[in-house]
Amino acid sequence: MRMHEIIIEKRDGKELSREQIDWVIQGCTDGSIPDYQLSAWLMTIYFSGMTRKEMFALTDAMTKSGERIDLSSIPGVKVDKHSTGGVGDKTTLITGPIVAACGVPVAKMSGRGLGHTGGTVDKLESIPGFRTELSRDTFLRIVSETGISVIGQSENIAAADKKLYALRDVTGAIDSIPLIASSVMSKKIASGADAILLDVKTGRGAFMDSLDRSIRLARVMVSIGENAGRRTIALVTDMDEPLGFAIGNSLEVIEAIETLHGRGPADLQKVCLELAANMLLLAEKADELADCRILAEKALQDGSAFERFKLMTAAQGGDVRYLDDPGLFPKAPLVLPVTAAKSGFVEAVDALAVGNASLLLGAGRLRKEDGVDHRAGLLLKKKIGDWVDAGEVLAELYTDAEDKGREATRLTAGAFEIDEKIPAMPKLIHARVTAESSATYD
Amino acid sequence: MRMHEIIIEKRDGKELSREQIDWVIQGCTDGSIPDYQLSAWLMTIYFSGMTRKEMFALTDAMTKSGERIDLSSIPGVKVDKHSTGGVGDKTTLITGPIVAACGVPVAKMSGRGLGHTGGTVDKLESIPGFRTELSRDTFLRIVSETGISVIGQSENIAAADKKLYALRDVTGAIDSIPLIASSVMSKKIASGADAILLDVKTGRGAFMDSLDRSIRLARVMVSIGENAGRRTIALVTDMDEPLGFAIGNSLEVIEAIETLHGRGPADLQKVCLELAANMLLLAEKADELADCRILAEKALQDGSAFERFKLMTAAQGGDVRYLDDPGLFPKAPLVLPVTAAKSGFVEAVDALAVGNASLLLGAGRLRKEDGVDHRAGLLLKKKIGDWVDAGEVLAELYTDAEDKGREATRLTAGAFEIDEKIPAMPKLIHARVTAESSATYD
Repeated sequence: MRMHEIIIEKRDGKELSREQIDWVIQGCTDGSIPDYQLSAWLMTIYFSGMTRKEMFALTDAMTKSGERIDLSSIPGVKVDKHSTGGVGDKTTLITGPIVAACGVPVAKMSGRGLGHTGGTVDKLESIPGFRTELSRDTFLRIVSETGISVIGQSENIAAADKKLYALRDVTGAIDSIPLIASSVMSKKIASGADAILLDVKTGRGAFMDSLDRSIRLARVMVSIGENAGRRTIALVTDMDEPLGFAIGNSLEVIEAIETLHGRGPADLQKVCLELAANMLLLAEKADELADCRILAEKALQDGSAFERFKLMTAAQGGDVRYLDDPGLFPKAPLVLPVTAAKSGFVEAVDALAVGNASLLLGAGRLRKEDGVDHRAGLLLKKKIGDWVDAGEVLAELYTDAEDKGREATRLTAGAFEIDEKIPAMPKLIHARVTAESSATYD
Repeated sequence: MRMHEIIIEKRDGKELSREQIDWVIQGCTDGSIPDYQLSAWLMTIYFSGMTRKEMFALTDAMTKSGERIDLSSIPGVKVDKHSTGGVGDKTTLITGPIVAACGVPVAKMSGRGLGHTGGTVDKLESIPGFRTELSRDTFLRIVSETGISVIGQSENIAAADKKLYALRDVTGAIDSIPLIASSVMSKKIASGADAILLDVKTGRGAFMDSLDRSIRLARVMVSIGENAGRRTIALVTDMDEPLGFAIGNSLEVIEAIETLHGRGPADLQKVCLELAANMLLLAEKADELADCRILAEKALQDGSAFERFKLMTAAQGGDVRYLDDPGLFPKAPLVLPVTAAKSGFVEAVDALAVGNASLLLGAGRLRKEDGVDHRAGLLLKKKIGDWVDAGEVLAELYTDAEDKGREATRLTAGAFEIDEKIPAMPKLIHARVTAESSATYD
């Protein structure tokens, strides 16, 4: 086979065979196909799209290009959850413990934050002592003993995807449904769970800002998962406004603890319960989603979910005193208020702008090799629908230097749209996609 | 500026500014932009196209990226001619001497053959002693003294184009009108002529096999030339069937000599006279094309064009005895006849298949670094419209080894379509495109 002929076939709209796709991914993994051909191929896919059959083959080839995790030693249906990334998205810290408390083992690999979106691993590491790099054996032992463990994603999962993603990132070929879907799903399938719940974020702070495209992405990912023999459900959830009030690593952990105590922000709690209920359905804890919702709520209300979070934290070396007394978390030296220029109802809070502000404050990283300041971030004081008086505080910024605060203040102030009219309240969950159906939530 | 942002703008259909295009071509030339970004950018252009303004800027940037030839020391209007490449296309060997004989200086840089298309430089080098690598000074002196010189193209002309072309070649981004047009025109403009005649080949043996696309390419190239201050005319000529009977280097030189004596194949002579007439019009030798045609025919009939060919050959070290007695050219050791399987009229002769046969016989090269056998090639004995009896010779193949002959025989036999019906005779010149108008020939 010759790479430039495969590029031309794809460019001209022909369906690539499984053998051709396997050959490309093999050549990507072993380095025999030069980057300039891979990037041209990715761009043809950006423009020409891929058939389902091609996406199944690409996902399968990428899954097999690296390490595959064997979770078969853990009894029961293992359910993984994946979020496409958002601002203030601490749902894993809440849904993981909920479903674990309901008896569903959670053996989860998570990523670090990049750009304006946060990562679960960074958030967990803001708990002093918490270790996210564990051996496979330790990881599996903790899941067996406590029902839950969340660690950093292995470098070797879907090795080809790693290289292709890096190329896409620098060549404008990120925003392609076939490429996003096969990238996400190859990593999830290689991670070994029996079933997968996808949280596809939509809106300004998400990877995809159009609802139509988000639903299409969800459908494609569900079909890839099912094709690979993994039961898969996707929720399309809102990321126009940040989720909850807290953005930044330890700030989000504190909000997650509050939520695990049943005292969290309403939007965050609702999304977490819906995600958890769908994970319980995938794990066959009940036949109906309504019954799964009841199970999830119970685990939140009776404190068993919070207990699971503590068990996991202890097992992974984290200091559980911080969970019992979140006041112990170190505070950023500077707290800067952002105030409203005029009175009115908050009509919108631009999640992308808030995410970028948080990044500037030190909570995120622009490049993979950068570190993060676990204390940095911001707390929203107002969200959509709230009345605000001129001069009132919209948000508090947490950082360690004035200069970081200045641009973040400007961004955060600009993120708030204030109007005299009472705004429509945003939908939190836009759609639910299963192998059988795709329903839009009302 | 950041390359991946420029790729995204182009990908999303925005018009790139002159500054952005200059920056990309600068980064291509100095190596600061990696190949994987350049190839992705080229692929976005393949899919998104380019506006006229973008093509003008790209051509200008590539023109300036390398050496530019100064022909101002030669008096008169210097007219260059460029063919997009074909099979049996020896027109430069004939039109060059014709226009030189009419008093128009020809200072031409030509390429070598690649793939199924031949190159003028290879053809000239089949004349023993003929040198195509000359210093600039020698080149200009020969033009001043004899009115004509044809040399190999400088490695340094349009340096950025060289790199971009190599990337396009291995990434399926060749067949793009904006990229072809800017590549050709940047080299022509850098070569210094005041006016440019383009011979855009169309049909199976050409770069573009659709007439519509060939005319579009011609229009785009003419607009680029005129924008750069060079009067430019394009003829769209046929390359469905090879031009003339001879394909292969010395075989084509011999046919060119015959044509310069007024004894050439009718199709070849017609195309050459039309090209020459348009060059004379560009050089303002007469106000009307019809008058220019008369001048060109006269130069052919009175022997003055042939004399110019001899003068140039002598000046560039070639042995003119070969021109006076073409029987001196070395013959290939093997001459293999290809015969007709059935009787009928020749309905088509596939130029691409014949070009590939010639390549296999040794007349062409697959890679730039390969050499060619000047004796190798083929002589067609029948062309479209000819009656052929079963068993009669369709073509003679010239080569040095039986094994080369076998596959070439199969290809050549397959190139001939024979039918009972009298076929329509092919049009030789399909269209003429000037800055003012684009007319289809009848």
